[in-house]
Amino acid sequence: MSLTVKALQKTSAEDSFRVVEIERRDPRPDDVVIDIAAAGICHSDIHTIRNEWGSAHFPLTVGHEIAGTVSAVGSSVTNWKIGDRVGVGCMVNSCGECEQCRNGQEQDCLKGAIMTYDSVDVDGSITQGGYSQKIVVNEQFVCRVPDGIDFDVAAPLLCAGITTYAPLKRWGAGPGKNVAILGLGGLGHMGVQIAVAMGANVTVLSRTRKKEQLAFELGASGTLAAEDEGFFSDHAGEFDLILNTISADIPLDNYLSLLKPHGALAVVGMPPAAQSLHFGAVVGGSKILAGSMIGGIAETQEMLDFCAEHSIGAIIEKVGVNEVDTTYDRVVRGEVYFRAVIDTSEFDGQEATALA
Amino acid sequence: MSLTVKALQKTSAEDSFRVVEIERRDPRPDDVVIDIAAAGICHSDIHTIRNEWGSAHFPLTVGHEIAGTVSAVGSSVTNWKIGDRVGVGCMVNSCGECEQCRNGQEQDCLKGAIMTYDSVDVDGSITQGGYSQKIVVNEQFVCRVPDGIDFDVAAPLLCAGITTYAPLKRWGAGPGKNVAILGLGGLGHMGVQIAVAMGANVTVLSRTRKKEQLAFELGASGTLAAEDEGFFSDHAGEFDLILNTISADIPLDNYLSLLKPHGALAVVGMPPAAQSLHFGAVVGGSKILAGSMIGGIAETQEMLDFCAEHSIGAIIEKVGVNEVDTTYDRVVRGEVYFRAVIDTSEFDGQEATALA
Repeated sequence: MSLTVKALQKTSAEDSFRVVEIERRDPRPDDVVIDIAAAGICHSDIHTIRNEWGSAHFPLTVGHEIAGTVSAVGSSVTNWKIGDRVGVGCMVNSCGECEQCRNGQEQDCLKGAIMTYDSVDVDGSITQGGYSQKIVVNEQFVCRVPDGIDFDVAAPLLCAGITTYAPLKRWGAGPGKNVAILGLGGLGHMGVQIAVAMGANVTVLSRTRKKEQLAFELGASGTLAAEDEGFFSDHAGEFDLILNTISADIPLDNYLSLLKPHGALAVVGMPPAAQSLHFGAVVGGSKILAGSMIGGIAETQEMLDFCAEHSIGAIIEKVGVNEVDTTYDRVVRGEVYFRAVIDTSEFDGQEATALA
Repeated sequence: MSLTVKALQKTSAEDSFRVVEIERRDPRPDDVVIDIAAAGICHSDIHTIRNEWGSAHFPLTVGHEIAGTVSAVGSSVTNWKIGDRVGVGCMVNSCGECEQCRNGQEQDCLKGAIMTYDSVDVDGSITQGGYSQKIVVNEQFVCRVPDGIDFDVAAPLLCAGITTYAPLKRWGAGPGKNVAILGLGGLGHMGVQIAVAMGANVTVLSRTRKKEQLAFELGASGTLAAEDEGFFSDHAGEFDLILNTISADIPLDNYLSLLKPHGALAVVGMPPAAQSLHFGAVVGGSKILAGSMIGGIAETQEMLDFCAEHSIGAIIEKVGVNEVDTTYDRVVRGEVYFRAVIDTSEFDGQEATALA
């Protein structure tokens, strides 16, 4: 027995998305079934399903920015009931017993967290993501979406929100701090809003000033263009914290020079090439280069509650189930301001095609 | 009027050290005069005076690991009196007013700290270091050497001690933590002792196991040889903190793989070449690469008190005033275990040669 649900799937990197029927497991005692209302399109989805990271298991459904309503619960579930507004992010399970899981850092589970898609599940199957009608998830990996946030605005918080919230919090964004957000895309626009809500003075660093007006609307106090003559020397030592949200190569020594002593450059993207770093760029001023990967489940809930309290959400563009291929191209070209979210209610009217 | 004192000086990178007479300023109201008893030989002295960093002002006296006795005080000095046992490290002045100075991070003074040698002093002269009979220093840049520590054992603490103490403290070396010290030289042997005294379980990482017995004697629980087959994969995820004390190129991604999630790799050396870093090596596990440069004056005092409390000192080899050139060669070849300290009392019997 299992649940048959419609989903967007690709059979190869070159294939187009097709609506197919996939099987979700029947809920185990500690599972919840979620009727998905909105699924955000994250750049990681694109890298994965175009097999740019080289590890995709086809056929595959991606999507790890998921919001919707609980439609069934397993026999031992006490935290959730039918009708609850919930979200699921990048993970759907972990060992629950190691030092990292016990510390609420399930993403760093020493046995390996089970990611929402393209990951080997406990039963040996490959996890299938949120571009779908329903998903079945262990109750510990579900977060509550506060009433004040619409599903389509909430969905991107489950990845873009926590990815920026965690390093901003860890590295002290707050009143009296100068925070720079490098890049103003899906992640960056969340980073700006969250850092502003934390009380920091926020500057957007971009190649150009093209998005200056958007940055102001998000609460930034200014935009600096890295292409400007003398940019790095003019702004040396200005920032307590820089959050780098872009996945391209950057002149790392130069960006570190923008930090105050003891400042931190947090990076969340992973450009494929090695970056070049002189240790002198961190030794002088005792600076920090810190990586950050999403956040734990409790911190994700904290982020959702923080966003609700501060009326923050993703700025989204709704796209139809049949528009995902063209949307991917637009995301890659940087034409989506700031997050595309799939209206998964459209699955109801779709004919599922059998896969070859 | 000024003080004429003997010192070791070089007139060029290629020159040998010669005993000469140099002028020290008469103490200003807020100065103390220190009769130097011991001056440690730091690798930075060698880099500087061989002009390997390209910025040396000749003729020059180096040395920034200085211990001795107060022999005179300026008219407004209240913290120090004649006969006090004191030390001077890498700095002799700073603005005292900027955000960094007010926070006790004088090394990061926004107007630029005045370093103990080869730095432009407030009067425009070039500061001259501790390979000398006496030094005149602003009273705020003097630390107390606790009675329990001999001068020659204390001198290296003023640079090698604080350079390792500050990052070990900042990044949480303590009970229950696995700390690795990369390199067992002048800095590394202090790092091992300090991390052990902080309560951590300490492992020495070295190219070979040549110094294993020495590592045990310093309190390390083990030594790992990076040259061993499978070293990096065998020890992936073992350490909470790695302190890299070497100034050579390292395979950075590999060393980061030895860290637990949320762990830190602290670096204090500055190899001239850029290092290669994939951001994925810090993003996965949300790891930290942190630079660290010495420490503030209050923290240096804290470190001296900590070392006295735990009966820690540098393990030194005393060298004569006329042995510094040959000692430099031995330091560079890694033959000094672990710190050479110049017996500056020998200046008394030396004939000073006039410089050309």
